[in-house]
Amino acid sequence: MKENLEQIFISEINPYKDSKFLLAVSGGVDSMVLANLFLSNKLDFSIAHCNFQLRGKESESDQKVLSDWCEINNIEFFVKKFNTKDYCKEQKLTVQMGARKLRYEWFGSFIEKGKVDFIVTAHHLDDQLETFIINSIRGTGIEGLLGIPNNVNNIIRPLLMTSKNQIIQYAELNKINYNEDSSNEKEDYLRNKIRHSVIPYLKSDDKNVLLKFRTTIKNLNKTSIFIEHVCAEWKEINFFREGDTIITNIYELENLFPRDFYIHELFKEFQFNYKEVIKLFDSDSGKYISSPYYKMTKNKNTLIITKINND
Amino acid sequence: MKENLEQIFISEINPYKDSKFLLAVSGGVDSMVLANLFLSNKLDFSIAHCNFQLRGKESESDQKVLSDWCEINNIEFFVKKFNTKDYCKEQKLTVQMGARKLRYEWFGSFIEKGKVDFIVTAHHLDDQLETFIINSIRGTGIEGLLGIPNNVNNIIRPLLMTSKNQIIQYAELNKINYNEDSSNEKEDYLRNKIRHSVIPYLKSDDKNVLLKFRTTIKNLNKTSIFIEHVCAEWKEINFFREGDTIITNIYELENLFPRDFYIHELFKEFQFNYKEVIKLFDSDSGKYISSPYYKMTKNKNTLIITKINND
Repeated sequence: MKENLEQIFISEINPYKDSKFLLAVSGGVDSMVLANLFLSNKLDFSIAHCNFQLRGKESESDQKVLSDWCEINNIEFFVKKFNTKDYCKEQKLTVQMGARKLRYEWFGSFIEKGKVDFIVTAHHLDDQLETFIINSIRGTGIEGLLGIPNNVNNIIRPLLMTSKNQIIQYAELNKINYNEDSSNEKEDYLRNKIRHSVIPYLKSDDKNVLLKFRTTIKNLNKTSIFIEHVCAEWKEINFFREGDTIITNIYELENLFPRDFYIHELFKEFQFNYKEVIKLFDSDSGKYISSPYYKMTKNKNTLIITKINND
Repeated sequence: MKENLEQIFISEINPYKDSKFLLAVSGGVDSMVLANLFLSNKLDFSIAHCNFQLRGKESESDQKVLSDWCEINNIEFFVKKFNTKDYCKEQKLTVQMGARKLRYEWFGSFIEKGKVDFIVTAHHLDDQLETFIINSIRGTGIEGLLGIPNNVNNIIRPLLMTSKNQIIQYAELNKINYNEDSSNEKEDYLRNKIRHSVIPYLKSDDKNVLLKFRTTIKNLNKTSIFIEHVCAEWKEINFFREGDTIITNIYELENLFPRDFYIHELFKEFQFNYKEVIKLFDSDSGKYISSPYYKMTKNKNTLIITKINND
């Protein structure tokens, strides 16, 4: 990579620099480098650590290293123990899916309570390439290829354009302590195959694979912004808002091309399935569909979106 | 795959069924299955075979098998020998790049002379996945990920949504003769690594990898159509055409968002570099840039695109 890690970090974090951050730190090299960058750049942050109790004594030692670091550097430290295995059994989730859910629910509560402005994670370009390959062979669209979005839902990822190698080099150069192998994604079988076999194999002939892949991600990001912008402009003209209610004309929707793609993009924020939306076009007035938070009702030649009151 | 190969083939070829086709046939299983599908569906086609003289006697035997097949089935057969190695040396191209260039130039000449309506190739879903991975780690955008476009420049690829496995099964079931290993891409080192190591490894845990990947390709195709359509609509309004000349307003271009992406998309058909187009915005009147076939001249607050007369 041409720029060094600290330069990339500063340009990524700069738009938010006066905010209050909560760093998700496992104690591994990625998140310890992240914590040290926040410290050396004098940003206002605290640290949150999930102890998933998946690796016995190791889990406890991860936590100890981290709490010591916070004490020495006078950084506020939050820690939460999860009975991950029981939770995943109950919820019928794989361990990595359960752990992810627990993690983001807990982090989200800090935002909801107004304690911090942004959650920060240490995801990097190697993670991004893994996700790209995994999602492409699972069937996805451009969002899935981008996989780990930067700056969505108050989560920012300032290391997303730097490689694992850069992170390790930075840690060595700056004598940063970290726990080896503190990942909670060890149990993700496919990710591990990609991480430990496919990507090293792709890198073996061309050291610049990640630098070039970054170009792909940048291009797809631009495409994604373009799509969002075109759809936002369409909504501006065709979504009539009255309080929490949105009314839109079916005739205008039917004329869109390519229709399926547009309908998916226009209504994904409400979590409606685009095929169900299209079915409503020809339904009787009064017919409706629901998503977790919204209801969409056909009324003559319009669709009416209302919030569902979940209280 | 849920549908069988012949069903997919028919639905893909149906829009063109009354055309005259030229099939690019190497003699390998993919192109021999393609030829047999054209034959059994009674389409109007002839066959073109490139003898790149890269594999000595094998090259000759490939050609013989194919000319016999054409004679038996009364199909017009075109063959051309290329001194590929000399050509690549002269042109400073890799063998696979040189061979591709020679092949498409020759095929293109059939279209130009009006002898056929469409060139047909036997590219399939496995090729598509290889190209997807290769281009993603070389740095690309959505077009590069799609890699092998269907139906561009009079080239159609009716097997693009079927897997290599389906093709082999079809060949066995229908007792189709073909030459083993008649690929001319053997020398593409990275493609071979992906073909023989990465993809089998990805498939080893999940037999449906290709079926799921097809969903990714379909989604990206829709995205690509969306982008094209939005840009075509914009051109419809903002490109003023007078004969072969196009005039467009710089102020309108400057207001586009995201600007780089839009400028790239709007002017790629003329093969202008978007960065050079943007530089013209602030240049003096009379300043111009050139691509192989077009010239773009700044004139007050407009850009004027004219064809270059290459005669």
